[in-house]
Amino acid sequence: MSSATGHPKPRLTALSGVRKGRVGEVWLVGAGPGDPELLTVKALRLLQAADVVVHDRLTPQAILDLAGPSATLIDVGKRKSRHTLPQDDINALLVALGLDGKRVVRLKGGDPFVFGRGGEELAALRAAGVPATVVPGVTAAFAAAASAGAPLTHRGLAQAVTFVTGHAAKGETPDLDWAALGRGNETVVVYMGLSTAAVIAARLIEAGRAASTPVLVVESASLAGERRILSTLAGLDAALAGLDGPAILIIGEVAAMADTSSPADLVAPMESRLAR
Amino acid sequence: MSSATGHPKPRLTALSGVRKGRVGEVWLVGAGPGDPELLTVKALRLLQAADVVVHDRLTPQAILDLAGPSATLIDVGKRKSRHTLPQDDINALLVALGLDGKRVVRLKGGDPFVFGRGGEELAALRAAGVPATVVPGVTAAFAAAASAGAPLTHRGLAQAVTFVTGHAAKGETPDLDWAALGRGNETVVVYMGLSTAAVIAARLIEAGRAASTPVLVVESASLAGERRILSTLAGLDAALAGLDGPAILIIGEVAAMADTSSPADLVAPMESRLAR
Repeated sequence: MSSATGHPKPRLTALSGVRKGRVGEVWLVGAGPGDPELLTVKALRLLQAADVVVHDRLTPQAILDLAGPSATLIDVGKRKSRHTLPQDDINALLVALGLDGKRVVRLKGGDPFVFGRGGEELAALRAAGVPATVVPGVTAAFAAAASAGAPLTHRGLAQAVTFVTGHAAKGETPDLDWAALGRGNETVVVYMGLSTAAVIAARLIEAGRAASTPVLVVESASLAGERRILSTLAGLDAALAGLDGPAILIIGEVAAMADTSSPADLVAPMESRLAR
Repeated sequence: MSSATGHPKPRLTALSGVRKGRVGEVWLVGAGPGDPELLTVKALRLLQAADVVVHDRLTPQAILDLAGPSATLIDVGKRKSRHTLPQDDINALLVALGLDGKRVVRLKGGDPFVFGRGGEELAALRAAGVPATVVPGVTAAFAAAASAGAPLTHRGLAQAVTFVTGHAAKGETPDLDWAALGRGNETVVVYMGLSTAAVIAARLIEAGRAASTPVLVVESASLAGERRILSTLAGLDAALAGLDGPAILIIGEVAAMADTSSPADLVAPMESRLAR
């Protein structure tokens, strides 16, 4: 398996020549939350058959290892310390590989169409006339809920669930519809919300959610280093000290259904977190 | 493979005796949207190893066929014309099988924790001391969005997505937070909303959504009989004539990104639907 990891601008010429003149195909494939066993059977099959696998920095090595021995791996992931590929360049790369006749698997964490910018990649491929197919995947929130044993919907507790992203520029408030999210009676799932968790909690309380609303935080869901913390909106900021991986926040009464009989380092009961 | 299909109250005594005295284990497993290739690798492995597979009426035969040759299949599905198992009896069945030492896979359509009542089954198992594990799956909405090529979130169009159920007693309005859903700038996904689609569309328009808001309807997502229709809130009622399978409604600007270059029987362009 050759790897282009560390080459921020892969030279496409090096990949040319195999099926020159024939257009290839690009699959935008949900890679799931991280555990290779949570790939779909279809994702696994496509991965094994791909000429080129385009992936992000967070794609676990155990998943990349499932690619066929002759596959070329291209890392377009965001790195703080290195030059990275902007989204437009990723789109252009996928188009170029497709036009070059390659069978390309573009691995997207979770599901390609939930905060994955898969829509932008698909639009670019369609515009260029490259056949493209989307393969759904298990989103991180489902893995987080499953491993904690906290359902996202539950009779009497939550009859709806809303997925939002907590991503925002440093020091800024995510641009969300706080009035809608504050109405309660639904579960709110926040992706990429670790750095803005304090302001999210404050805005939800301001919008009408009880300060005692349970919040389940799951870091690195489905991976060996998974950590789970049960807290409340009021206690969230203090509870998150020490977490720095990719995390999901599950906010709402269902969070209190999380299994707290697991080892204490995995799930800290709400009381002990609040007592700190 | 023996099957208890058609026996509404499976006699547990017939299943006893294998690991008498040792508690078994129950896995609540997301079976995905229907295409066996959209099972996770983990779901497939557990299915092949199970002593007993407990499933619903809608679980495709192609998925049941993946169970091991010695597995007992129990159908607890809802049937209009037959006696069916109420949820409490399903919970009791899972507990009894677990206490009887069985390795049980409880297959849930899509993901167990999204409108699957998986939380109720897990609570019953926990209360009875039966080890239980939840395995996440690909929810039908992800499969619907993927096959239509319409992302659930997209920069500039939808920064959030809300999942609700349209289920309600005949002639009644689903008990949803219409004011929140009517605020726009998010995608609304409706499960089990075919029979209440007209009232859902009317209430969303009343709550502030434009009558021209695109709606993508996907029936039997990921299965051979999949059908897709692109309509609008105003045109939804007329557009749904003839659909009667399980369907997902994707409501919001992202729906207009659905691929309408597919065969006309799969995706009817919005104009042609409205002209009828």
